[in-house]
Amino acid sequence: MHYLEQYPGQNVLITGGLGFIGANLARRLVDLGAHVTVVDSLIPDYGGNLFNIAGYEGRLRVNIADVRDPYSMRALVAGQDVLFNLAGQVSHMDSMTDPFTDLEINTRSQLSILEACRQVNPTIKVVYAGTRQQYGKPRYLPLDEDHIQAPTDVNGVNKLAGEWYHIVYHTAYGLRTTSLRLTNTYGPRQLIKHNRQGFIGWFVRLALEGKPIQLYGDGQQLRDLTYVDDVVDAFLRAGVNDHANGAVFNLGGAAPISLLELATLIVAIAGRGSVELVPWPEERKKIDIGDVYSSHARISAVLGWQPTTPLQVGLTQMIDYYMRHFDKYVTP
Amino acid sequence: MHYLEQYPGQNVLITGGLGFIGANLARRLVDLGAHVTVVDSLIPDYGGNLFNIAGYEGRLRVNIADVRDPYSMRALVAGQDVLFNLAGQVSHMDSMTDPFTDLEINTRSQLSILEACRQVNPTIKVVYAGTRQQYGKPRYLPLDEDHIQAPTDVNGVNKLAGEWYHIVYHTAYGLRTTSLRLTNTYGPRQLIKHNRQGFIGWFVRLALEGKPIQLYGDGQQLRDLTYVDDVVDAFLRAGVNDHANGAVFNLGGAAPISLLELATLIVAIAGRGSVELVPWPEERKKIDIGDVYSSHARISAVLGWQPTTPLQVGLTQMIDYYMRHFDKYVTP
Repeated sequence: MHYLEQYPGQNVLITGGLGFIGANLARRLVDLGAHVTVVDSLIPDYGGNLFNIAGYEGRLRVNIADVRDPYSMRALVAGQDVLFNLAGQVSHMDSMTDPFTDLEINTRSQLSILEACRQVNPTIKVVYAGTRQQYGKPRYLPLDEDHIQAPTDVNGVNKLAGEWYHIVYHTAYGLRTTSLRLTNTYGPRQLIKHNRQGFIGWFVRLALEGKPIQLYGDGQQLRDLTYVDDVVDAFLRAGVNDHANGAVFNLGGAAPISLLELATLIVAIAGRGSVELVPWPEERKKIDIGDVYSSHARISAVLGWQPTTPLQVGLTQMIDYYMRHFDKYVTP
Repeated sequence: MHYLEQYPGQNVLITGGLGFIGANLARRLVDLGAHVTVVDSLIPDYGGNLFNIAGYEGRLRVNIADVRDPYSMRALVAGQDVLFNLAGQVSHMDSMTDPFTDLEINTRSQLSILEACRQVNPTIKVVYAGTRQQYGKPRYLPLDEDHIQAPTDVNGVNKLAGEWYHIVYHTAYGLRTTSLRLTNTYGPRQLIKHNRQGFIGWFVRLALEGKPIQLYGDGQQLRDLTYVDDVVDAFLRAGVNDHANGAVFNLGGAAPISLLELATLIVAIAGRGSVELVPWPEERKKIDIGDVYSSHARISAVLGWQPTTPLQVGLTQMIDYYMRHFDKYVTP
């Protein structure tokens, strides 16, 4: 059966379901006919935003809860067929200033969610959102899944541990778990209210505000980007495929692009803003990891996934979305 | 200056300092003329044992405290020159039955110790005890430090995170940290009261009690062993060498040996006990990792360390120790 035909009538839980990727995934699943529950704590500085499910309010269940609360999570995973486990603290900078909160959300909560699954719903399928940040500074490019994991910040360490609990719970208990290591995801419903959760949303915001996008050094650092609809497609494939159990997959983007080229493209599409090259600040230089992009060969082979949205198309849809809904994402 | 000449007068803190490796290290440091404080929580099922410092009671400071207590740790790291960070929950089985305690001790505590160092003693040197368990099932042998980390139990995940906090705190803050990834350490003062903390101590206990040592399958699984005095020597080298900062090193043993050969040797030296081959229990087979041994090429190159104690010599000293002090390690 085609993977999309397996979702109608399925009970699906999405942690971080009011956030960027979670909400895009929730909307798609509702359209496919799944029974969707989104869990989100709506922590002010994080990505959760009720506007992300605008138009879908009556068609899915919203449960405000924190993944750090083991009792809520235990009750919520009961009876679910699939858990898309996307809740996380994603700011690398915040993980250094407040490492314990990052640990609680990205590591300890993952353990308690998995314990809940093992105890009350051992046949559930769990798809976790890992990150290419787990690899640290690349030793070779593109990054594949066998690249050594040598994170350069606390967030990378905690995400790594959170992911490996998933794999261990598969190895030891047979829990049906998969991790998708995300690279730079972009698209509508991304947080743009501050610059601590990824650069693409922040670039788009600056352009729309007519401000300069500042790049460090010569702006030639390469990155790969994945459009959110493609990321959603990868989660949908992994969520119903038992060949993915116990496995980790890079969600590598298409061809890498330099930050300078990307910023220039954003400014061109937005018709506003500018690009400015500035010297590296000392404390950023120390944790800079140079060019980074990853291979999606493994997920292509096992799950048939490919990034399909051209960058120009994805950025145009993203910028168009924020032109219409800027006030819902930026507090005046 | 020779590394051993750098310790007289140094202030040294050892977490887990009443445990197996910690106590052997503490005794050696006292003999070298260092001012030693050992921190241990004496959790009953763990390795801490006041008898481990017998004869040294007046020559070092014993501070009973739990590494999970951030305030105690903050006060204790102040003013120290070197921290040997050995406290940990080391039972793989316990990490599966009580994963949260393992997380608190092996992961969260490490973060709070490092935060304390960064805030109150940023020039301290920290040497952490990692484990070859972080690698999981070997993809090639011997394991080197570039082998992918794919732990197979919660303890391996938590130790991995605990180690990488140390490396991140070096990368981001310049803290002088090193991790030594221990393999199977053996020798006097090892816990032998239960079988959940490594097999060598347990084999020795069974032999001394005249009981059969049971091995799974054909007993041909290879392991490398390191005598505790050699491990202590590695910590001493790392503790005063700035070339080790931000680095991880395997403490690989000499030539690997099969469990059957090892058990037979223990029985021969003890002059008691026997060896018995039994079929694999299903739940152990699932998490078995086959042959495991690691290379010490990197630490030899950087710190000049080599395992020097022949197995026959080390085992004889160990067995002799427990013949004399059996009652101090096994509750009647």
